[in-house]
Amino acid sequence: MSEKLEVRTQELGKKLFDLSSESTMSLFDKGFWSGKMMDWSMQNHEFKVQMFRFVDVLPVLNESAQVNKHIKEYFLDDEIKIPMTMKAAMGVASTGGLIGKMASGTIRKNVETMSQMFIAGENSQKALPALEKLWKNGLCFTVDILGEAVVSSEEAFDYQRRYLDLVNGLAESVKAWPHQELLEKTGLGPIPRANVSVKCSSLYSQVSSYSFRESVETIKERVRPIVEAAFSKGICVNFDMEQVDYKDIILTVAEELFSEPRYKDYPYFGLVIQCYLKSALQDLDRVIKLSKSRKHPLTIRLVKGAYWDYEVIKARENDWPIPVFTQKAESDANFERCTERALSAYPHLLTALGSHNIRNLAYGMALAEEKKIPKESLEIQMLFGMADPFKKAVKNMGYRLREYVPVGEMLPGMAYLVRRLLENTSNEGFLRAKFVKGAEQSELLRNPKERVKTISPVLDGTSLENASKAGESHFTNESPRDFSLPEVRKGLAQTLDKVKKQFPIKAYPVIAGQRREGLEMGSHTSPRDSQVVVSQFAMATTEMADEAIRVAKASFPAWSKRPVAERVAFVRKLSQKIRDRHEELMAIMMFEVGKTGPEADGDVCEAIDFCEFYAQEMDRLSKPSKRADLPGESNHYFYQGRGPALVIAPWNFPLAILCGMAVGPLLAGNPVILKPAEQSSGIAKVLYDMMLEVGFPRDVVQLLTGKGEVVGAHLVSHPDTHIINFTGSRAVGLSIIETASKVLPRQRHIKKVVAEMGGKNALIVDDDADMDEAILGALKSAFHFQGQKCSALSRVIVLESNYERFKERLVGGLMTMKLGDILDPATKIGPVIDKETQSRLLDVIERNRSKIVGQLEVSEELMSKGNYVPATIFEESDFNSELGQQEFFGPLVTIFKAATIEEAVLKLNDTDYALTGGIYSRSPQNIEYFKREADVGNLYINRAVTGSIVSRQPFGGFKLSGVGAKAGGPDYLLQFLEPRSVSENLMRRGFTPEL
Amino acid sequence: MSEKLEVRTQELGKKLFDLSSESTMSLFDKGFWSGKMMDWSMQNHEFKVQMFRFVDVLPVLNESAQVNKHIKEYFLDDEIKIPMTMKAAMGVASTGGLIGKMASGTIRKNVETMSQMFIAGENSQKALPALEKLWKNGLCFTVDILGEAVVSSEEAFDYQRRYLDLVNGLAESVKAWPHQELLEKTGLGPIPRANVSVKCSSLYSQVSSYSFRESVETIKERVRPIVEAAFSKGICVNFDMEQVDYKDIILTVAEELFSEPRYKDYPYFGLVIQCYLKSALQDLDRVIKLSKSRKHPLTIRLVKGAYWDYEVIKARENDWPIPVFTQKAESDANFERCTERALSAYPHLLTALGSHNIRNLAYGMALAEEKKIPKESLEIQMLFGMADPFKKAVKNMGYRLREYVPVGEMLPGMAYLVRRLLENTSNEGFLRAKFVKGAEQSELLRNPKERVKTISPVLDGTSLENASKAGESHFTNESPRDFSLPEVRKGLAQTLDKVKKQFPIKAYPVIAGQRREGLEMGSHTSPRDSQVVVSQFAMATTEMADEAIRVAKASFPAWSKRPVAERVAFVRKLSQKIRDRHEELMAIMMFEVGKTGPEADGDVCEAIDFCEFYAQEMDRLSKPSKRADLPGESNHYFYQGRGPALVIAPWNFPLAILCGMAVGPLLAGNPVILKPAEQSSGIAKVLYDMMLEVGFPRDVVQLLTGKGEVVGAHLVSHPDTHIINFTGSRAVGLSIIETASKVLPRQRHIKKVVAEMGGKNALIVDDDADMDEAILGALKSAFHFQGQKCSALSRVIVLESNYERFKERLVGGLMTMKLGDILDPATKIGPVIDKETQSRLLDVIERNRSKIVGQLEVSEELMSKGNYVPATIFEESDFNSELGQQEFFGPLVTIFKAATIEEAVLKLNDTDYALTGGIYSRSPQNIEYFKREADVGNLYINRAVTGSIVSRQPFGGFKLSGVGAKAGGPDYLLQFLEPRSVSENLMRRGFTPEL
Repeated sequence: MSEKLEVRTQELGKKLFDLSSESTMSLFDKGFWSGKMMDWSMQNHEFKVQMFRFVDVLPVLNESAQVNKHIKEYFLDDEIKIPMTMKAAMGVASTGGLIGKMASGTIRKNVETMSQMFIAGENSQKALPALEKLWKNGLCFTVDILGEAVVSSEEAFDYQRRYLDLVNGLAESVKAWPHQELLEKTGLGPIPRANVSVKCSSLYSQVSSYSFRESVETIKERVRPIVEAAFSKGICVNFDMEQVDYKDIILTVAEELFSEPRYKDYPYFGLVIQCYLKSALQDLDRVIKLSKSRKHPLTIRLVKGAYWDYEVIKARENDWPIPVFTQKAESDANFERCTERALSAYPHLLTALGSHNIRNLAYGMALAEEKKIPKESLEIQMLFGMADPFKKAVKNMGYRLREYVPVGEMLPGMAYLVRRLLENTSNEGFLRAKFVKGAEQSELLRNPKERVKTISPVLDGTSLENASKAGESHFTNESPRDFSLPEVRKGLAQTLDKVKKQFPIKAYPVIAGQRREGLEMGSHTSPRDSQVVVSQFAMATTEMADEAIRVAKASFPAWSKRPVAERVAFVRKLSQKIRDRHEELMAIMMFEVGKTGPEADGDVCEAIDFCEFYAQEMDRLSKPSKRADLPGESNHYFYQGRGPALVIAPWNFPLAILCGMAVGPLLAGNPVILKPAEQSSGIAKVLYDMMLEVGFPRDVVQLLTGKGEVVGAHLVSHPDTHIINFTGSRAVGLSIIETASKVLPRQRHIKKVVAEMGGKNALIVDDDADMDEAILGALKSAFHFQGQKCSALSRVIVLESNYERFKERLVGGLMTMKLGDILDPATKIGPVIDKETQSRLLDVIERNRSKIVGQLEVSEELMSKGNYVPATIFEESDFNSELGQQEFFGPLVTIFKAATIEEAVLKLNDTDYALTGGIYSRSPQNIEYFKREADVGNLYINRAVTGSIVSRQPFGGFKLSGVGAKAGGPDYLLQFLEPRSVSENLMRRGFTPEL
Repeated sequence: MSEKLEVRTQELGKKLFDLSSESTMSLFDKGFWSGKMMDWSMQNHEFKVQMFRFVDVLPVLNESAQVNKHIKEYFLDDEIKIPMTMKAAMGVASTGGLIGKMASGTIRKNVETMSQMFIAGENSQKALPALEKLWKNGLCFTVDILGEAVVSSEEAFDYQRRYLDLVNGLAESVKAWPHQELLEKTGLGPIPRANVSVKCSSLYSQVSSYSFRESVETIKERVRPIVEAAFSKGICVNFDMEQVDYKDIILTVAEELFSEPRYKDYPYFGLVIQCYLKSALQDLDRVIKLSKSRKHPLTIRLVKGAYWDYEVIKARENDWPIPVFTQKAESDANFERCTERALSAYPHLLTALGSHNIRNLAYGMALAEEKKIPKESLEIQMLFGMADPFKKAVKNMGYRLREYVPVGEMLPGMAYLVRRLLENTSNEGFLRAKFVKGAEQSELLRNPKERVKTISPVLDGTSLENASKAGESHFTNESPRDFSLPEVRKGLAQTLDKVKKQFPIKAYPVIAGQRREGLEMGSHTSPRDSQVVVSQFAMATTEMADEAIRVAKASFPAWSKRPVAERVAFVRKLSQKIRDRHEELMAIMMFEVGKTGPEADGDVCEAIDFCEFYAQEMDRLSKPSKRADLPGESNHYFYQGRGPALVIAPWNFPLAILCGMAVGPLLAGNPVILKPAEQSSGIAKVLYDMMLEVGFPRDVVQLLTGKGEVVGAHLVSHPDTHIINFTGSRAVGLSIIETASKVLPRQRHIKKVVAEMGGKNALIVDDDADMDEAILGALKSAFHFQGQKCSALSRVIVLESNYERFKERLVGGLMTMKLGDILDPATKIGPVIDKETQSRLLDVIERNRSKIVGQLEVSEELMSKGNYVPATIFEESDFNSELGQQEFFGPLVTIFKAATIEEAVLKLNDTDYALTGGIYSRSPQNIEYFKREADVGNLYINRAVTGSIVSRQPFGGFKLSGVGAKAGGPDYLLQFLEPRSVSENLMRRGFTPEL
């Protein structure tokens, strides 16, 4: 950067500061109460968190008692570490009685008042006065419609309708307003008074980068009427940017739509670039290219970006590269880089700088001067309700200042308010630095590039490294595919094409490394297409089973005594092998068991996680622990293997569960005999081959294909079987437990049965739940992989006050989910595993037809092709009914009503099972109650009840759901080990080395 | 101390140093090889340890190959951290072949040569030349006979015979020697040339402070002929001091014997005071008192003491006060305190200073001067073979120097040699400071009292605190009774008297706190006396069992949700209650199940340990562990109770096991129903009452007395029982496992069975074992508590080369054990639990009569009084015989022969059981092999296979010995807990508090 430019930047920055200091300097124009809240929030982190959470839940609290309850729980609980003064002040509101009611009423009112600072009105009509006032003050605006997450098509179309109303209404209203020279033209010509910003994701509830094309098409279809209205009324329309996962979808929508012949000459389209993204410059280039291809330039709004937490969380969760800059100064510097790139594209691009950062703005102004860009061609944008002194200064310097103005109901508006508050009181923000910390002007105006390295304590408080340390993450899970990358989507499509040519996969028993052929064969057709045989499996005989267990028994001493490091090395090699063939394995499972891509991806990742986690665990457990030694005595406690393990695995996580159930015992020193499910013999054979390839001894890992009733049952009652590691149905599991408990003649041990069985999992939706989240969580939990998970959601227990609305929205949500062929990325719900399952589930639906409240039907065509079952939501009042008690293992879920949280938990518990269970609630006390009283192995709070991750959520249940310690948890391997003690007397002749 | 005395001490010290520096200054008069060994030992701790261990085992290595093997294992193994130069030098000896043989022959010879430096000869006859040489050099001596530990009466009498030979032989031989003025008189008159030191414990293999009176009587009886011989030949006899546990016994023997009319005027008796004992001054006063009561004074030899390691180990093991000073300087200072006290008693006491510490000696000389005690009345004693320059200096200053001269075979002599080497190369020793570290004279002569505080780095290397840290002891076990204290012995006797008046104890079912009377009663007579009914127990009905489980089930939710700290508090109160009633509980068990005092003591301590350890464990487990968190997500893993537990306990550890099996589930949150064994209903009732007293809720802890076949069986198959915690016979255990595996109608869980069953435990005696230790360990393991422990030794597998000698000595050892009434403290083996057991065991003996090689018979009188069974040693070659395979649970043990260590381990493993097993070996490689290959839950090396201690040796087996994790170990409580995961989504509206 030229020195001249920097000097001018500083000059302009000082001028902006000077001009703003003419007004009273305050961040918010606020009354006493909201002022206190903001002050305290900025002083005390815990208060801030509680405050925001309270504000988040407040809109759904309809009664004074509810408000009081939440104030108590959020602010007054002994566990909450906020200063006593704050507690005392908040305490007034919760004393109950008349004063209490008044106070809690006051709170509602105060928070509403606060949100009115940031939201112009409930709808476009009501917002007009505020907009007109802005206009008369010489400021223009772009209007955004606040919306809760859309879960259904109705909601999406409602959102569309509100936009249309806004466009049409505004177009009409603004006509009568006085002329404002500065606001109605750029250097290139006139611009409309009305300006609207659209969030595309609100128009479609199923946007997903995995289903890229379909997402683009659907959004185009739904945004088109809005664009058309703007076009015909001549007003400006911008597409806002949202989470990075949607970025390419929105850019593609813009590229395609804005290039259509009808719109290609329309001058008033805008887009947004988020400068906190590491990809911002490339994104900008793409927009410049688009803009240059059109007759009139697009307007680009440069912002930092408002999804920082979300992006970091998502990336960390998936172990993906973090897409955003982690230092605020980096984003600030990138903002200037983007400003330079954007201004350089003038007059092929119009630039708006959306920032409250005076330095960034001054830089943009200085650069525009240098590039001789007229003032009216550079727009400054700021948020409605904040930093008014800056706005005046910008205006007074002769720039057009546009406010970003949210319009919407207070209820969904709270969410927006919360986000704004968090953003603007964050430790790293410019506004906080200026208004709260009172940083020096020179510091505030410093070139952000310089700050990147030095990390100013004022401007860069939190670093991501701290967050990482606090998380104490000692195990890194395998990273799933990032389907927002086109090459990933393309790679999978190619692999699917390649893999399907290899069918059928033929699986034979392999005993001591020898493949046994010439046996009766069974076959398994693809759930999506009954014409395609995906795998064939040879029917192993009981004689082969005998042979296998003999071989395993003989291999046990050597395997169990092999150094743990060597066993660990085999498993790590296996995990690398799986990683190398990640996509191929996904593809096989998609065909063989009917998983969608993301579900198959999860399966492969989990297999890798099991390998790596158990390897790490075995390494830990292999270090003999010293027991309290005394001089003269050395005591150690260590573990050793038990003996041959029979692994009976299910078809629903045909790679992950089989793999985890095998490597656990193997690491512990036990030879395994794999008995995969018939329906997934293909992927099992592939896994088995990989195990041999990485060098597992052939007598230590053997494969028995065929019927569980034959070879499985035979080995369960074999005297040489030591461990039975079973995952599957409750009936089979209980019978194994019973059979294996008998000590047979010449059996010198008691068999260890690890059985993971079914579930009848429930989710409670509390009366203060975030309903958007609850619906999305419920749909995912109940219908992904067609409900064929032992963790799948089967019952939703909704608190009365939410019941009707929840039911309606849940059904609406289901209706937007595509049920179809898993090769179509848009498909969320595929076929069930086999014909038998299909007809069993159709019977359940038939028997309970009167209880159906929503159903996603299956076309005749699909029905004739594969094993499809209509995804169905039932409603039932009898918790003891079939719908309340039976596990279906299919895309069926039933809604129940409960009067109180206590009743809800009681009903949640009242089944034979105890596997997963969840609650959506924003009451800390109810969450605590749920944690304490809900009898399930895996409790989930404000999230889906499926998708446990190895190590993070060790998985497994009790009651009749299972006996074992949790898969992917710290106690899992202990089940396959025998603990031993060694005590050595070190004293010889009265002397010992240690003294 | 007067300044004058200190000045004189320094003068004399300097003179002693000066006089000694006239000779070549070296600690040992040594050749190249032994010199190297000693040098290296002092340079390198690891080498020293290995060297001493090697020297310890060398005598039993009869073949060159064995020597080579041990050299390899002790010095050349990669794990051994000694410098390469030392390894290389040692390596020559182990290369095998001709050079190897020569070298290993050389090593044997070198070590023998070394030991000849310290041992005057193999017997008194062969020692005479060395003794005469001393005499002619102007030095006198006291002769001690080296002995291995005596395990039988034969060996004790052999030792006695050797002493008699020594006394008689010496008396004769010395007559011809030339007169030595200085050596033949004190200031009080003439003294004999011949002087003998006796170790009393060598005269009786069963010395024990618990059996105080009997130990005193037996030793008196056996030492009397030696005293009589000395008396009649007019030579001097001293009683040496040994471990502190024997101190009062030896002092009492001396008091009683030396005061007998025949000996009370005899002038030539000596005793020893160990100045490292904190009690040394009191001990000395006791001796002075005795001496003053006689016509002629005793000679007291002041030493520091040679059992320091042993005393520290023993005290730490039992958590008793350490009886010795832990700083060497403290012992040195105490030596001077004792010197002052002893010299003050002159002429009623003659003093000999046994020390190589010039400072201590100079102080004694100076003080004697001050007290005007003639030089000839102060004797200096030093060890034969060491520090010769000092000896000359002492002599040249005109003092009588007596050497302490061991006589004996090289084989047992090695043990002595090892002890001497260790002592004199210890980091704290004066000799090391002088000769190795080359400390300054002034430092060496400093008043030890001054050094106590400053802790000179030269003189005080190791501190006990370091040892404690290295031990990482986080749990302190309950301290057993110290029967060497007279008040402890007396207390128990009184309690026994009191307790027996309370019989019979009546035990009734107690359900929800209500005692159920009016039932059919059973009764249990004392094993020691069939006339005495110790306890009566009411026969609970199945209806009562149903009621109890109903109550327990209802109490579960509240109990399991009660804060862990409260459950822990109940258990800690219980443990305090048990501690308060320690002796009473011991006494009840002695009567009810026939335990000796020490066995009953162990039972009470273990009960306390279980309480305290499990409480500590539950506290640990109750802290939910954070699983790898990511931002926006909080994951916890925690445990909760399962449900009602049925505790079926055995009679053999009627307090400890019942208590441990109950508090484990209770702490975990499970209500318990106690079903104690019928034979120990009395102590069970007492425990149960204590549980109610400390406040356990009455619905949480219930008692069912009566028949296991009735109420136990009923509850095992009850659908509401969650946990069955069983310890007992294999037949019952396996049937419980089978029955409980069936999930009954309306049962919503899978029962958890924890079953600890039998053992057929074996001990291997390797061909290089320390046989003394092996025999003592085997006798203890097989016969204490009449073999009625699941850990008890049942099979001894002896390597061929040791077989005959081991058998003979083991039988000899058994014969010295008293089988009789447990009220007699001398009794080591008491009666078995009941008539049924007695007759079952008598049948076993009868069936295997031809295999008996040794038997401790039972008198007619005992037989008619209680349930006695002859303690029997069998010999058998068939490992598959009844003797090789059946668990007897009685005082029976069988010896087997094995050709190799491999065969021994194979046979050890070849049973249905896998509980305890041990090896006595001094081959590191064989020990490793044993650890790796021996299939038992508890492995013991060079110690007894019984007596596991809570936390230090978690206890339990596998195969058909048990299913559970180990009692008293880190995994025990997990069995009574269900693990659970909670995952909470912390992100709201895209924001999370942690970022």
